[in-house]
Amino acid sequence: MKKITLNVVKIGGNILDDDTRLLTFLTDFAALPGAKILVHGGGRQATQLAERLGVPQQMIDGRRITDAETLRIATMVYGGLVNKQIVARLQALGCPSLGVCGADGDLLRAHKRQHPSIDYGWVGDIDSVNIPLLDRWIGQGLTPVVAPLSHDGAGQLLNTNADTIAQEIAQAMSTAFAVQLIFGFEKSGVLLDVTDENSRMPTLHLEQYRQLRSEKVITAGMIPKLDNAFAALKKGVRKVIIGQAEKLPELVAGKNGTLIEMYDE
Amino acid sequence: MKKITLNVVKIGGNILDDDTRLLTFLTDFAALPGAKILVHGGGRQATQLAERLGVPQQMIDGRRITDAETLRIATMVYGGLVNKQIVARLQALGCPSLGVCGADGDLLRAHKRQHPSIDYGWVGDIDSVNIPLLDRWIGQGLTPVVAPLSHDGAGQLLNTNADTIAQEIAQAMSTAFAVQLIFGFEKSGVLLDVTDENSRMPTLHLEQYRQLRSEKVITAGMIPKLDNAFAALKKGVRKVIIGQAEKLPELVAGKNGTLIEMYDE
Repeated sequence: MKKITLNVVKIGGNILDDDTRLLTFLTDFAALPGAKILVHGGGRQATQLAERLGVPQQMIDGRRITDAETLRIATMVYGGLVNKQIVARLQALGCPSLGVCGADGDLLRAHKRQHPSIDYGWVGDIDSVNIPLLDRWIGQGLTPVVAPLSHDGAGQLLNTNADTIAQEIAQAMSTAFAVQLIFGFEKSGVLLDVTDENSRMPTLHLEQYRQLRSEKVITAGMIPKLDNAFAALKKGVRKVIIGQAEKLPELVAGKNGTLIEMYDE
Repeated sequence: MKKITLNVVKIGGNILDDDTRLLTFLTDFAALPGAKILVHGGGRQATQLAERLGVPQQMIDGRRITDAETLRIATMVYGGLVNKQIVARLQALGCPSLGVCGADGDLLRAHKRQHPSIDYGWVGDIDSVNIPLLDRWIGQGLTPVVAPLSHDGAGQLLNTNADTIAQEIAQAMSTAFAVQLIFGFEKSGVLLDVTDENSRMPTLHLEQYRQLRSEKVITAGMIPKLDNAFAALKKGVRKVIIGQAEKLPELVAGKNGTLIEMYDE
């Protein structure tokens, strides 16, 4: 049986901070035909609010250490401000949507991260995605808009990286759909020279990735995203594309960004 | 045809500020059998955040003037912090729930309030409630948890009083359900002497209300709530009960609080 295509699109980075760019993206996203899910970040907005509130933020390898106050900020910014503003705009663009976090409908069950040396605080590693729930919403024509928060089932909200949530949802939905996972960010794709947008690699396969990483051509910021991408492919996601969020139609059509591939062609 | 009972419960005031009391309430709410919807406020938390951020708040007759910055605060606190914390706890209490605001699924469509002399800012007066959507969620065993935000369908979120949202939802759902609307707050009900919790009136009918209001026994804080209550009864809500949120089982059973009645018995 041919599976229906599902686009799982993740946005983050500075696009959420720029109203014009965000509206361009949301207009394209709303126009995307077929089943789709939007996962958003909001780290910059969270950092700004933390600064205004005088709550110091600690990052380790690009991951936010989430103390109790930072979790409150994340819940306000991701679950409230960013999520609801996106939903209100998508409704206006003719895209019926439903803004949720991982606690809603038990969408994303997680456990508090255990790490031998680093205390990440209230950070969650995903245990399960509520597939029937997403399936039902999509079947009803509602586009889920997912904030990067999970919960532990015992009443505790947890902060979970938005790239990881997109990856986990894409993997889980692959049982029922042909999933394309699109990581939208500020660069045009994986770059051979991070200072040159024209050095975009149209494709990147696993062996290339390993080599470029060992040669330090691909560095810190991209590594978790690419690890997520390859993990998703390994778990049944059909395609992973990384590129500029404002080029969404081209990314979906395979005409822009970097197509991540498991094996050499 | 006998209609199924639906309890629409509104909480606000200081219960959201007190973890122990909130947990008591949520435990009772989770245990409430049958169809139910929870509507929450969060004004105190919004005021606290506004103070920390140095955003002055202006109230007129108990209604918040909502400038752009205050709307952002409301979206963070109501749509994010309060809503998601309640949902995470309800899930842990065995009550599958879904936290939404009025933009989600086009649940609450509103227009920006027009007033001849006061500019309320980004405040919405409700035009429509998405009855089929609530109906579907309830049918799927999901309890909607509604934050006091609406949207105008053109991309703008709006701040709407939680009592009013509870009333509008209760009215709208009365076409399909026998709706009981429960306003939980910090007092034991409508009091003949506001300093004496034992002066609770077990019932209050319209003529009594008019008289007590003209005698200034019932004053400022209670008037909008009671106006909401009588309006709801007029539009088909079966019962309206006002009382202490922590007494929820007794309120639902008609053994506590004040039962609001349209006519003399």
